Amino acid sequence: MCTATPSYTIHARDHHFGWSNRLEPVRTVAPGDRVEFRCRDASDGQITPVSTAADLARNDPDRVNPVTGPIRIDGAEPGDILKIEIDGFTPSGFGWTANIPGFGLLADQFPDPALHLWHYQTGTDAPMAFGDMARVPLRPFAGTLGVAPAANGCHSIIPPRRVGGNLDIRDLTAGTTLYLPIEVSGALFSIGDTHAAQGDGEVCGTAIESRMDVTLRFDLLKATPLAFPRFTTPAPVTGHVDSNGYEVTTGIAPDLMEAARSAVSGMIDLLGRLHGMGAVEAYMLSSVCGDLRISEIVDAPNWVVAFYMPRSIFN
Amino acid sequence: MCTATPSYTIHARDHHFGWSNRLEPVRTVAPGDRVEFRCRDASDGQITPVSTAADLARNDPDRVNPVTGPIRIDGAEPGDILKIEIDGFTPSGFGWTANIPGFGLLADQFPDPALHLWHYQTGTDAPMAFGDMARVPLRPFAGTLGVAPAANGCHSIIPPRRVGGNLDIRDLTAGTTLYLPIEVSGALFSIGDTHAAQGDGEVCGTAIESRMDVTLRFDLLKATPLAFPRFTTPAPVTGHVDSNGYEVTTGIAPDLMEAARSAVSGMIDLLGRLHGMGAVEAYMLSSVCGDLRISEIVDAPNWVVAFYMPRSIFN
Repeated sequence: MCTATPSYTIHARDHHFGWSNRLEPVRTVAPGDRVEFRCRDASDGQITPVSTAADLARNDPDRVNPVTGPIRIDGAEPGDILKIEIDGFTPSGFGWTANIPGFGLLADQFPDPALHLWHYQTGTDAPMAFGDMARVPLRPFAGTLGVAPAANGCHSIIPPRRVGGNLDIRDLTAGTTLYLPIEVSGALFSIGDTHAAQGDGEVCGTAIESRMDVTLRFDLLKATPLAFPRFTTPAPVTGHVDSNGYEVTTGIAPDLMEAARSAVSGMIDLLGRLHGMGAVEAYMLSSVCGDLRISEIVDAPNWVVAFYMPRSIFN
Repeated sequence: MCTATPSYTIHARDHHFGWSNRLEPVRTVAPGDRVEFRCRDASDGQITPVSTAADLARNDPDRVNPVTGPIRIDGAEPGDILKIEIDGFTPSGFGWTANIPGFGLLADQFPDPALHLWHYQTGTDAPMAFGDMARVPLRPFAGTLGVAPAANGCHSIIPPRRVGGNLDIRDLTAGTTLYLPIEVSGALFSIGDTHAAQGDGEVCGTAIESRMDVTLRFDLLKATPLAFPRFTTPAPVTGHVDSNGYEVTTGIAPDLMEAARSAVSGMIDLLGRLHGMGAVEAYMLSSVCGDLRISEIVDAPNWVVAFYMPRSIFN
């Protein structure tokens, strides 16, 4: 899906596991350059086509979420914006979704490890089968992309920050332009955590985690204020799944987190009743194609969070 | 847009301003009956085509958000579900959007009253002009629909509850089926707060508030557990606005409310820079067609809330 020949390739061996403004850049690129990144998956290859749920506990947690890079953008200074045109993705054909104990929106309700492996056709739009229960369309993107924070030290890769990082925004797909605030000279951009598909929220904590290559084009907007990442996406973001509408559950509470948890719990119950799906399967399927939306955030003291599951995946 | 002749019409004079299980039903209907409701607007007609922002302070707050009803559903008992097929809406052609001091997601940043009046063509899909700045497609729904709570007393109409009420879910449009948990014998259903269009969140606190008539068909699912309202919508929910994609701003914080506020603030700034729009105009436009989504709710301690503004409204 890459649309032009990149000037550089950054190989997957050049990766790191946290954010720091002291990392040595792999390469310096100029504004206007197009760069291909070879990305590892979020398990750093520890989950393979022969892995089982029992293997999850044996994974080395220090190898979670490697990102390829960093690269230095020539002329980038604090207060500039890094403009990133997302050209395209070359997925690998293998992916996984896991319930990792202690992680995820309903971690208290799902204490046991679970693992679903996906094998998909690359180069087609064919949806991926989730057993005989559903079929999930692919929509590749990178979960983690960001620049180095100004604050010194080594910062965990897990939480996103105003400079990006583990954003897990499912609409950062091919054709989209992302704008990140720059905090250090040279920006120091890295990318990884590539996903074949994910819903808004990534509710079980993992998407369809899948190794792939990504091509990006960089530019700078000099001395432009930006509080948080923003992006422009040129086309519908739900057209690949919304043809038959949605099943929607809600949660209503004075706390958005509590409301979100109720909405997702309600969907897990509903998928069990409508489709006979097991709870952890419904939870993982919700994570890869269900969307958390805030329906109402003004009618104090109760807010409404809704969880939208596309009906087309069951056809 | 009504699809069948209703068995009954509930007139707007039969309305109330709060929820109570002691209200005398206007009428008893049977499962399977189709009922037309004539609904007042959320100001109870106090805002008219000649109103100005200065008039907002003179409105009687005891007349906010009248709902037409209640009707009793024959045979409904606590623990049943009220199934509501939303047949259609007959909008009036006039609407308003207001920034009401003290109300809304960014009430602290917008202390002054503002009012935008809308005049739209009924019976067409023509988008409504927002001055010369944007054009907003119509998508009518009822912001408030619910049944009486089991708890005795008179409960404010403002917050939604597990029995529904002021849900402000923009996708409860014609063709959708809503399921509400019933807490009292006879259910005691009422509806109002009709909106010509709204985005997810209703961020400034008001939608395109507009008087209209609504036709619904009722049914009962006996003795079926349901924690919160849910609904099934048979078709895409963003197809009317998403053809050109979105401008998206984000907020990233350990608190979803703080993240949502940052995302909406970022959009107001962006609309000012891209389109020269005044801040309160951008805030009101965001409320009627921008969508709050939770992109990521698992990468502790920071969550990502994104605000999606459809680009098509500016074409």
